[in-house]
Amino acid sequence: MSAPLLEQLIDALRVLPGVGQKTAQRMAYHLLEREREGGKRLAGTLAEAVERIGHCAQCRDFSETELCPTCANGSRERSQLCVVESPADRLAIENATGYRGVYFVLQGRLSPLDGIGPRELGLEQLEQRLAEAEVQELIIATSATVEGEATAHYLAQLARARQVRPSRLAQGLPLGGELEYVDRGTLSHAFGTRSEVRD
Amino acid sequence: MSAPLLEQLIDALRVLPGVGQKTAQRMAYHLLEREREGGKRLAGTLAEAVERIGHCAQCRDFSETELCPTCANGSRERSQLCVVESPADRLAIENATGYRGVYFVLQGRLSPLDGIGPRELGLEQLEQRLAEAEVQELIIATSATVEGEATAHYLAQLARARQVRPSRLAQGLPLGGELEYVDRGTLSHAFGTRSEVRD
Repeated sequence: MSAPLLEQLIDALRVLPGVGQKTAQRMAYHLLEREREGGKRLAGTLAEAVERIGHCAQCRDFSETELCPTCANGSRERSQLCVVESPADRLAIENATGYRGVYFVLQGRLSPLDGIGPRELGLEQLEQRLAEAEVQELIIATSATVEGEATAHYLAQLARARQVRPSRLAQGLPLGGELEYVDRGTLSHAFGTRSEVRD
Repeated sequence: MSAPLLEQLIDALRVLPGVGQKTAQRMAYHLLEREREGGKRLAGTLAEAVERIGHCAQCRDFSETELCPTCANGSRERSQLCVVESPADRLAIENATGYRGVYFVLQGRLSPLDGIGPRELGLEQLEQRLAEAEVQELIIATSATVEGEATAHYLAQLARARQVRPSRLAQGLPLGGELEYVDRGTLSHAFGTRSEVRD
């Protein structure tokens, strides 16, 4: 005899990030008690999404069509190419800035110990795009971690080899950040890369 | 044109309790990036669960069969009936105690302002069970809130009217609780209902 359906549901909910036994249980009860309609809709959408959402052929972002809406959009500036680690990073930049160029999503970062090399990040595809001569600036927006920095270094080399200008997001104090509470590394870096104040 | 599937998924995930826009987004990306199999299983189990899980005809707990496994179990003690507010409470008692009796799940508590009266809690059904003469003790395990107490009071009256002995879970200091950090109400109650120490 298989486990009761309720237990199966609690177990299945645990694939969600940050959801343990207790939370999964609370979610299952909530759905059954008060949100059967929403639960049904979630089940349907989720089934369709894992089935139909693939990757954009050009930028590797999630997309249900061959090209994602951004890549398919003719009015985006193709001379600027912004490289990010994940779709979530892409979305954050899209929402926070007025950037009108296009993206390339690595879906990870160089991490030899985990077996993630240039191949896994689709860097051959990126090189092809750099070779197409449309791209003039490669904006490297990988994260400011050790692995992110290593990836950025590698990407900058790729860009220079193709006569593309690499750039990197500015590092320093976060806006509104109190000096006292900023971590040592950031403070030291910001101090070292201080810029002259002009009138 | 409808919203992209990914946005629909993020929106659908927000029916889960405690999940806002940011968490839903993180969950959607996690499922698509690393847990497509788990996502598919979750979708299937959820669809089946909201469809097939109903209520036990006897105790009103969630059940996929007419009688839940506990009610259908012939070896449970039918002279003890424990009333709880929710399926989660029932599970907590079942896991923490060695209770061998049966349950009755109110699926709520008396709350006239929200339109929840004896009818909504299935108290007619409970009265019928009390009338069947099998039940000797009604263990009232509603929560220690104002509404829970009111419900407990009402249930105790029902039990007495049917010559059934009502009982209520003990209230006092939680095990391992430091006196200093216990709330005033609990401390005052525990002090007032102190019991004599016997050798």
